[in-house]
Amino acid sequence: QSSVTLYGIADISLGLVNDGAVRQAKIDSGTLNTSRFGFKGTEDLGGGLKANFLLEQGFSLDNGASLNDSQDGQTKLSQMFSRNAYVGLSGGFGEVRLGKVWSAFDEMNGSANAAWDSALSPSSGVFYAGAIGGYTSNPRNSVIYFTPDMSGIRGAFSYSLGENKTATVAAGSVAAVNVKYASGPLFVVLGHQTERVDGSVGMKKFTRLNANYDFGVAKLLVGVGRQSQADKATNDWTFGATVPVSNNVAISGGFAASTDNVAAGDIKRKGFGVATQYALSKRTALYAGYRTARITSPVQARLTTSLYAMGVTHSF
Amino acid sequence: QSSVTLYGIADISLGLVNDGAVRQAKIDSGTLNTSRFGFKGTEDLGGGLKANFLLEQGFSLDNGASLNDSQDGQTKLSQMFSRNAYVGLSGGFGEVRLGKVWSAFDEMNGSANAAWDSALSPSSGVFYAGAIGGYTSNPRNSVIYFTPDMSGIRGAFSYSLGENKTATVAAGSVAAVNVKYASGPLFVVLGHQTERVDGSVGMKKFTRLNANYDFGVAKLLVGVGRQSQADKATNDWTFGATVPVSNNVAISGGFAASTDNVAAGDIKRKGFGVATQYALSKRTALYAGYRTARITSPVQARLTTSLYAMGVTHSF
Amino acid sequence: QSSVTLYGIADISLGLVNDGAVRQAKIDSGTLNTSRFGFKGTEDLGGGLKANFLLEQGFSLDNGASLNDSQDGQTKLSQMFSRNAYVGLSGGFGEVRLGKVWSAFDEMNGSANAAWDSALSPSSGVFYAGAIGGYTSNPRNSVIYFTPDMSGIRGAFSYSLGENKTATVAAGSVAAVNVKYASGPLFVVLGHQTERVDGSVGMKKFTRLNANYDFGVAKLLVGVGRQSQADKATNDWTFGATVPVSNNVAISGGFAASTDNVAAGDIKRKGFGVATQYALSKRTALYAGYRTARITSPVQARLTTSLYAMGVTHSF
Repeated sequence: QSSVTLYGIADISLGLVNDGAVRQAKIDSGTLNTSRFGFKGTEDLGGGLKANFLLEQGFSLDNGASLNDSQDGQTKLSQMFSRNAYVGLSGGFGEVRLGKVWSAFDEMNGSANAAWDSALSPSSGVFYAGAIGGYTSNPRNSVIYFTPDMSGIRGAFSYSLGENKTATVAAGSVAAVNVKYASGPLFVVLGHQTERVDGSVGMKKFTRLNANYDFGVAKLLVGVGRQSQADKATNDWTFGATVPVSNNVAISGGFAASTDNVAAGDIKRKGFGVATQYALSKRTALYAGYRTARITSPVQARLTTSLYAMGVTHSF
Repeated sequence: QSSVTLYGIADISLGLVNDGAVRQAKIDSGTLNTSRFGFKGTEDLGGGLKANFLLEQGFSLDNGASLNDSQDGQTKLSQMFSRNAYVGLSGGFGEVRLGKVWSAFDEMNGSANAAWDSALSPSSGVFYAGAIGGYTSNPRNSVIYFTPDMSGIRGAFSYSLGENKTATVAAGSVAAVNVKYASGPLFVVLGHQTERVDGSVGMKKFTRLNANYDFGVAKLLVGVGRQSQADKATNDWTFGATVPVSNNVAISGGFAASTDNVAAGDIKRKGFGVATQYALSKRTALYAGYRTARITSPVQARLTTSLYAMGVTHSF
Repeated sequence: QSSVTLYGIADISLGLVNDGAVRQAKIDSGTLNTSRFGFKGTEDLGGGLKANFLLEQGFSLDNGASLNDSQDGQTKLSQMFSRNAYVGLSGGFGEVRLGKVWSAFDEMNGSANAAWDSALSPSSGVFYAGAIGGYTSNPRNSVIYFTPDMSGIRGAFSYSLGENKTATVAAGSVAAVNVKYASGPLFVVLGHQTERVDGSVGMKKFTRLNANYDFGVAKLLVGVGRQSQADKATNDWTFGATVPVSNNVAISGGFAASTDNVAAGDIKRKGFGVATQYALSKRTALYAGYRTARITSPVQARLTTSLYAMGVTHSF
C-alpha cells in the first residue's frame, strides 16, 4: 500500500478546430499534456540498488475513452496501460527498464518544440505528417538502458522486439539511442531510431538534433531532423523561444517546417504555434494558444489546418 | 499521492429475472447502486477557489466487464472512465466542470424514483422504454455550470458538443438545465434536456418535474415527465414513499406509469417496485426487493417482466 | 480512502521461445507470476463479521494490454477486472464471496506444480492442452463459500451461473468443490469441477488430487488429475521438488505427463520444467528457468516446444 503512488494529469480545453474541410468547436482532452493516470513505486534494495515500476494509461478526459499505443503495423490491443508499463532496476550503473517504455528517441524528440511540446507546438501537424509518417513512441517488448550522468553527458539505448517471426519472415524491431549534454544554460541532444514492422518491409530511420540555450529572459529552442525509408526522405527544422513573463505567466512559441522529397516534387509543411500558461498553483494552470499548419503539394490543393484553444491542466 | 482519493461501490445481488420470455436465476452487478471505482481530488488554490477532478469507471462486479457510456448514435468507445471524467474549478461563483459529466437533466432525473433510484425502482423498465427511448445521461465533450445556493434555489446548465460536423451536416448536441428548490422538508426540481445526434435528425426533448416531502415517518416522492421527438410523445408519472423503519432498516416503494401516443393507439407501461435495506454499517448494507413492469400495446401481446433480488452493497 | 489498498505484481522476462515451428527471442509478461493490479479492502462490521471486496485486473507488462478472462464458450468481454471481482462477508461461519472468483477447483489446481505454478512449471503446455482443453478458472456470476478451519481441514464450494437460458436450451453452469488437509509438513487437497457451456452440450469434468510433504531440505510435490467429456478422457500426473538452497535462493523443478484416450490411439504430452529464484528483497526477485514439452500423437508429427527465460518479479 505505502509502496504505490497514484498520479496523473487531467487536461481539457475548449477549442475552435479547423481540419481544412470543417471548422467546429470542440472540447478536447490533452491539448497541453496528454490526460493520464498511473501507478508507480520505488523499493530500496540496499547498496544503492532500487527496484522501480511504473504503469501509465492515457485516456481522453472529454469522453472517458482509453488511448491506444502507437506500435506501427501491429495488432491493436485493448489497452490497460497504453503509455508505459515497466519494471526495472537502478543504481550506480544507471537504470534498466523492461516492458513498454518510451524509446530512447522519444525520450529526446520533443525537447526543441516550443509551446511545451504539445498540440499547440509549431511542429504539430508538420513533423511526422508526411510520406514516412510517425515513429513508434512507446514500443512493446522493450528494454531501455540509461547511463549514469558522466560530467553532464547521459546516454540511453532502447531495443524492442517485434515478436512476429514466422517460418519465412524475420521479426520486426525498434532500436533507438540518444546522447544528451547539459551544462549550465546549454542543453544538446542527439537521437536516432530505426524501426521495421517485420523482415519483409524496409527500415524506417529517424534522426534528430535538438538544442536549448537559456538566456534567462528567454530560452531559445532549435531542432533539426531527418526521416527516411527506402527512396523516401523528409527533412525538418523548428525554432522557438520560451519567455517567463512573470512568476506565474510564461509564453512560448515558434516556427517549424518539414519537406518530403518525393518523385512528383517537394511537399512542404510549415507551422506556427504559440501558447501561454497562467499557473494557479504548482499543480494547476490555465492555458491558451493557437497553432496553424499549411501543406503545399505539387499534386494536391493547399491545405491549412488550425486550432485555437483555451483550457486547464491539473496534475495529481 | 495525498492529492488523490480512490473510492467506489461494489454491489452484487442474486436474483430471479423474468424478461417476459425466459425466467432464470442470475448473479448481477449494480442492482441497488452501479458498481464503480474512481479517482478524485480537490486542490485549494486560495481565495476560495478550488481545482477539482474526478475520474469514474463503471463495471460489472459479476463478470469484471467495463461498462460503456450512453452517448446516443455515437461510436462506441473502449472506455477507461465511462461514467464521469472531468476537471474544473469551484468557488463563490459556483462550480464549472469540463469533460464527461452527468447532464443537468441527469443530475435531477431520479430524485422521485422510489427504491433509491435503482433497478428495483417502479420506473425501471417503464420510463425511457418506449418509442423515444432513453436520454444521454453522461454526454461526452461537455461543460456544466452549477450556480451557488441562493436562498435554497440552485440551478445547473450543461452543454455537450457532438463534434461530428461534416461539410453538409451540422454537429449534434445535448443541452440540459435544472432548477432546484430545497427548504426544510420540501424539495422540488424541474429539469429539461434537448438532444440531437447530428444536424440531420430531429431533436429529442425530455422534461421532468420531481418533488419530495419529508413527513418524518415517511418521505413522499412524486414525479411527472414528458418526452417528445417529431410527432411522437411519451408522458409518465411516478409516486412512492420511503419509510425509515428503524435506525438501520428502511423500506421504499411505489408505482410508475408511462404512455406512448402512437398512430396505432396508446402503448402503456405500468410498474411497481419495492426494496428494503438493512445497514450493517455506514458503508455496507444488505438489500432485497421486487419490481415488475407490464407493457400493454394495441399491436403486440402483453409483456410482463419482473425481478426478485437480494444483495449486498459496499462503499469504499 | 483509508479503506482501499492498491496492490499488484509486475513480472517480466527475456526469453527464447520455441513454439515448435519458430524460435525467437521475446520479452514476455507474467512468466513467474501473472502481472496484475488490484484494489481491495476489509471493513470490520463488529461481532467478528467483516465485509471484504477485491477487484483485480490482469495485464501484459510487455505491451500494456488488458488480459481477458477464461469463460469457455461465452462472449468475450471488454475487461476492467479480468481476474477477480467480488464483494462478500467473512466471520466465524467461514467466508462467502459473490462475483467473479477463482473457482473452488482453481483454488487448489496448481498446488503440486513445481517451479511455483508458473509458465516454467513442468505442467505448462502439458496439462489442459489436449482434447478437452482448459477449465474455466475464474467464472462469471459466481458464489464461493469457504468453510472455517476444522482441525486442519478446510473446504470450499463454488457455483457459477451461465445466465444464457433460452426458451429451448437450459443455462450453463460451473460447479466446483475442494477439500484440503494441512497438518505439520503434510498438505493434501482434492478438487473437482464440472462445467457446461449451456444445456445443449455435454458436461466437462475435472478432478485433481495434489499432495506436498515438506522434509525441510526439500518439499516434495505430487499430483494426479483426470478430465473427461462424453467419450473423451485425459489422465495426467506431475511430481517435483522445491529446494531452499540458501536464505534467498530456491530451486524448484519436476516432470509432468498427460495422456488423451482418443479413437485413433493415445496422444501423449510430457514436460520438464525447472526454475530458480534469487530474492533481492521480500517483494522483488530475479528468476531464471527452462521448460520443455513434447507431444507425441499417432496421427501427427512429434511437436516439441520450449522456453528459456530470465526475469524479474516485483510485488507492490
